[in-house]
Amino acid sequence: MRLILEGNGASRGMALGRARLEQPSRFLVDETPLEQAEVDAEVQRIDEALATARGELKALRDKLEGPLAREVAEFIDAHSLILEDPVFIHGLHELIRTGRYHASAALKMQRESLVAVFEAMDDPYLRSRREDIEHVIGRVQGALSRESSVEERKIASRVGEILVSDTVAPSELVPLAEHGVLGFVLTAGSTLSHSAILARSLRLPMVVGSHDALSHLQDGDLLLIDGDEGRIIVHPTAQDLAGYRHWQREVVQQDKRRARLRDADTRTRDGVPVQLYANAEMSGDVAQARAYGAAGIGLYRTEFLFLQRKDAPGEEEQFLAYRDLVLGMGGLPVTIRTLDLGADKVDSAGLVLQDEPNPALGVRGVRLSLRTPQLMHTQLRAILRTTSYGPVRILVPMVSATEEMITVRRMVTECAMQLRSEGHPIADSFEIGAMIEVPAAAIALPSMIRKLDFVSIGTNDLVQYTLAVDRNNNELGALYDPLHPAVLRLLAHIIAVCKRARRPVTLCGEIAGDVHFTAMLIALGLTEFSMHPGLLLEVREAVNAIDAEAVRKVAPVLLRASGRESIRKVVERMRAQSRPIVENTDLVSIPP
Amino acid sequence: MRLILEGNGASRGMALGRARLEQPSRFLVDETPLEQAEVDAEVQRIDEALATARGELKALRDKLEGPLAREVAEFIDAHSLILEDPVFIHGLHELIRTGRYHASAALKMQRESLVAVFEAMDDPYLRSRREDIEHVIGRVQGALSRESSVEERKIASRVGEILVSDTVAPSELVPLAEHGVLGFVLTAGSTLSHSAILARSLRLPMVVGSHDALSHLQDGDLLLIDGDEGRIIVHPTAQDLAGYRHWQREVVQQDKRRARLRDADTRTRDGVPVQLYANAEMSGDVAQARAYGAAGIGLYRTEFLFLQRKDAPGEEEQFLAYRDLVLGMGGLPVTIRTLDLGADKVDSAGLVLQDEPNPALGVRGVRLSLRTPQLMHTQLRAILRTTSYGPVRILVPMVSATEEMITVRRMVTECAMQLRSEGHPIADSFEIGAMIEVPAAAIALPSMIRKLDFVSIGTNDLVQYTLAVDRNNNELGALYDPLHPAVLRLLAHIIAVCKRARRPVTLCGEIAGDVHFTAMLIALGLTEFSMHPGLLLEVREAVNAIDAEAVRKVAPVLLRASGRESIRKVVERMRAQSRPIVENTDLVSIPP
Repeated sequence: MRLILEGNGASRGMALGRARLEQPSRFLVDETPLEQAEVDAEVQRIDEALATARGELKALRDKLEGPLAREVAEFIDAHSLILEDPVFIHGLHELIRTGRYHASAALKMQRESLVAVFEAMDDPYLRSRREDIEHVIGRVQGALSRESSVEERKIASRVGEILVSDTVAPSELVPLAEHGVLGFVLTAGSTLSHSAILARSLRLPMVVGSHDALSHLQDGDLLLIDGDEGRIIVHPTAQDLAGYRHWQREVVQQDKRRARLRDADTRTRDGVPVQLYANAEMSGDVAQARAYGAAGIGLYRTEFLFLQRKDAPGEEEQFLAYRDLVLGMGGLPVTIRTLDLGADKVDSAGLVLQDEPNPALGVRGVRLSLRTPQLMHTQLRAILRTTSYGPVRILVPMVSATEEMITVRRMVTECAMQLRSEGHPIADSFEIGAMIEVPAAAIALPSMIRKLDFVSIGTNDLVQYTLAVDRNNNELGALYDPLHPAVLRLLAHIIAVCKRARRPVTLCGEIAGDVHFTAMLIALGLTEFSMHPGLLLEVREAVNAIDAEAVRKVAPVLLRASGRESIRKVVERMRAQSRPIVENTDLVSIPP
Repeated sequence: MRLILEGNGASRGMALGRARLEQPSRFLVDETPLEQAEVDAEVQRIDEALATARGELKALRDKLEGPLAREVAEFIDAHSLILEDPVFIHGLHELIRTGRYHASAALKMQRESLVAVFEAMDDPYLRSRREDIEHVIGRVQGALSRESSVEERKIASRVGEILVSDTVAPSELVPLAEHGVLGFVLTAGSTLSHSAILARSLRLPMVVGSHDALSHLQDGDLLLIDGDEGRIIVHPTAQDLAGYRHWQREVVQQDKRRARLRDADTRTRDGVPVQLYANAEMSGDVAQARAYGAAGIGLYRTEFLFLQRKDAPGEEEQFLAYRDLVLGMGGLPVTIRTLDLGADKVDSAGLVLQDEPNPALGVRGVRLSLRTPQLMHTQLRAILRTTSYGPVRILVPMVSATEEMITVRRMVTECAMQLRSEGHPIADSFEIGAMIEVPAAAIALPSMIRKLDFVSIGTNDLVQYTLAVDRNNNELGALYDPLHPAVLRLLAHIIAVCKRARRPVTLCGEIAGDVHFTAMLIALGLTEFSMHPGLLLEVREAVNAIDAEAVRKVAPVLLRASGRESIRKVVERMRAQSRPIVENTDLVSIPP
């Protein structure tokens, strides 16, 4: 009997295969208190389990090879860091020695308190880092209960299978793919997890949050999973399979077309040049950005350097990370964003929760930087030192007042003078821009633009604040709408102000990488986009199909439209006007 | 030795008098558990203490007379309601019977849990209601420890004294004023407390939040308190006293001028008519609004009816409250705002805390109303039934999309049809407007205006969202700026759109009642203001002094100004251009 399970698409594409269920390991927690005499042995047990887990991660890392080795290594290093964190280890020891908890109970308590820190975070990406904590602690739990290692269990999966599990760690995912696993159905998990990112890189379909999958499926069930729609079809019908074959044919054609796009110029059909930049966070992103022909890095998020550690990174460490990035891009421009964390997320000594009633409207981004000038100073010095290695721009997040930019510019000048007097070879001048994500900055841009060398539009936050809708509040999903007429007007206004003032303007919210919006953004006058590198080819293909002159003629209609429905229709019309140039060589036939 | 203590001005004006310190009563809490045999006696003790407290409040209420009797009676009724709340009483009984707590400890725990509910609230006005809880519980504690009643202690203050205390209850304040107390210095307290509201009505200066006052002052110290600046000068110098006399002379002149303003038209110096409306919440506000010649009620907040109770008020109860308001205004227009609470504050069964990470960007205002249509329906029916008693307008808060207004309008039409078919005499048509406080609504107003009969600008929230600055976050005070160029542009835009569409537009944020902004708002084209009734005369006087044509000429300069400082200068210039028309009769001399 055909059955459909629902989840969230975390990695696109379809896969047909047999289910292999991996029930979550049951970890027994001994809640009884320890006797004094048992304490030392229990401390030793947890230390041994930690050492085993570290050893497993090291072995995994040493075995890495292939195109994703660097990316996976970074994820594994992030996990190893947790296991080596003295605060974490000391906490476990204290719980055992002073609290008289068994190692298993101490581990559970540490897990819960760490998870709570991440769950309270505002940024969905950072919040999804709780999964890292769970994977690491799961590994220690496994070692503690002397189970076989996680890899041994899951890699029992065979060629042509689809793994159905509660969750999958990034370190498990690559070997599973190498063993021929075709896709993943997870009962938990976030679309922003490291595993989801890897699955997308590997182009393996993944559906997460399919809560009932483990109870509704059986080993060997034939599954057709659809990572676009977030659906799992159990026992697919002939019609389902025909759809799958059709999809396969399209993928082959698409791949051929896109392969030619890797080194292609990005231009609209009528010849308007467009720059596609990549967002980056880790060195793997840089490799992908170059492989897919990014025009540069449009947004380098520096938060990753500051998280999952017990103190802020020093100037030298930051400098080396930023320099690697600049060198990696081989002369293409790189835009580095200064620290964009809220007081809810970090203080200079690591992760600390502060009590702000509305953290999204609180001390974050440049507001935090201007309150911790020493932190800002260190970061600016590290960034400025990279300016002799390639074209680097400095991007300031969460700006709401011109005065903030004046202060940052003064700090940059001071840092540059210091660096020159210390003999560092740095550039003669620096481009400093603002992330326009607060409505006030967007509206008052005409009076701020003279203080900016360039502009980046951060639509994720801009939409959130303009509509007064928390984008992480599930109750309000329907109200969070990037096509609200006010958002469209603000975007058109920002782009027009930048054009008039001859300042480059890039858009780097999620809509930059979503082909549903590409024609609309070109219509509003945008020519620079920054997105996850994995989306570059798809967006380039979309750009190539757009007739810029034609869609720009429709822009006034778009900006006059008032209702949600009429706006959606205009955007659809713009997209429909954009037809790819079909070449005959694409029309190869694939046997069904 | 002269000493200056700082606090927050809660009621304006100066007072010179001798300090009388009232140390907070120390209430001993017995933390030991009860024996089973003692339980019944302890329940009886708490019941007797509750009865005593109720009796004291009733006696106070019966003695009320004079112009503020009605207002004070409402505050006392709010306190009595807490004492009669079955949930509160049942909770106390349960703590004593099941938890085996002494009455004093049970009372302390109830106080803490109630205070926590109010402290978590987003709205500063509602948050200040925690003081009510503390006053009521303090009264029960007093009864429990068989102390003299609160009134007896504090009313020992004598003529010419300034009371220095931790806090003062509204029920204490009026008798204190009658006994000749000249002013108040409180170590705790909020500028939004009921006591602060009463002090403003009585024109007695009050400084709150002067944390060290009780430890730095002694009985009999000569104090000069300044409720404008929030300062307490201890042992004032000859120069301080000269400043005080100068202030006294000015007050006398001002009073004379304003007395003539009570029934005067509100017009600018060059004859532009301006409407000044009052904000209202309680019947006392209505009396004051009429006494000071308000053009109507510009904003009636209905939340008060919904708080401090265990279920939502029914249609009949709401109807009677709204009808009293409409009748009280004797034919002047009344604008009733539908419920403006967030999910963090209320559900239909009373006060419940929900867990939203950013309540200010969450389910509130019309978003909550559209999710609880039954609640909205009841309120709309109650409001519509008042339309046969006077001119009533319906104001919808927190609107961000045109679709929300379409839904509300449909609900109004449905309710009206129902009411007519039930035989209720209601008006033929209704004016429905939106509170423009979300940036999206302000920006997209041109496409929303056709769905609105009138517009109210809620600057408090509009500033908060436009700048992405939580207005209750003390860390960000400097960034919360109603004179940010983006805010000025939005205000000018809203007013211009309304004028073009011939829709009336009222501004009802705090800047409406602040004379620093009056000339600027007139310059931007505003002609309708709504404010606390106590501010009507002051603003009327300011309006009368403004040359509308002259300040409007400066408006383009204002909208082009970019920096904070240059904007402040233009606003100051506009204000300085506005000179009151001085008549000779005002120039009476007052002996020093």
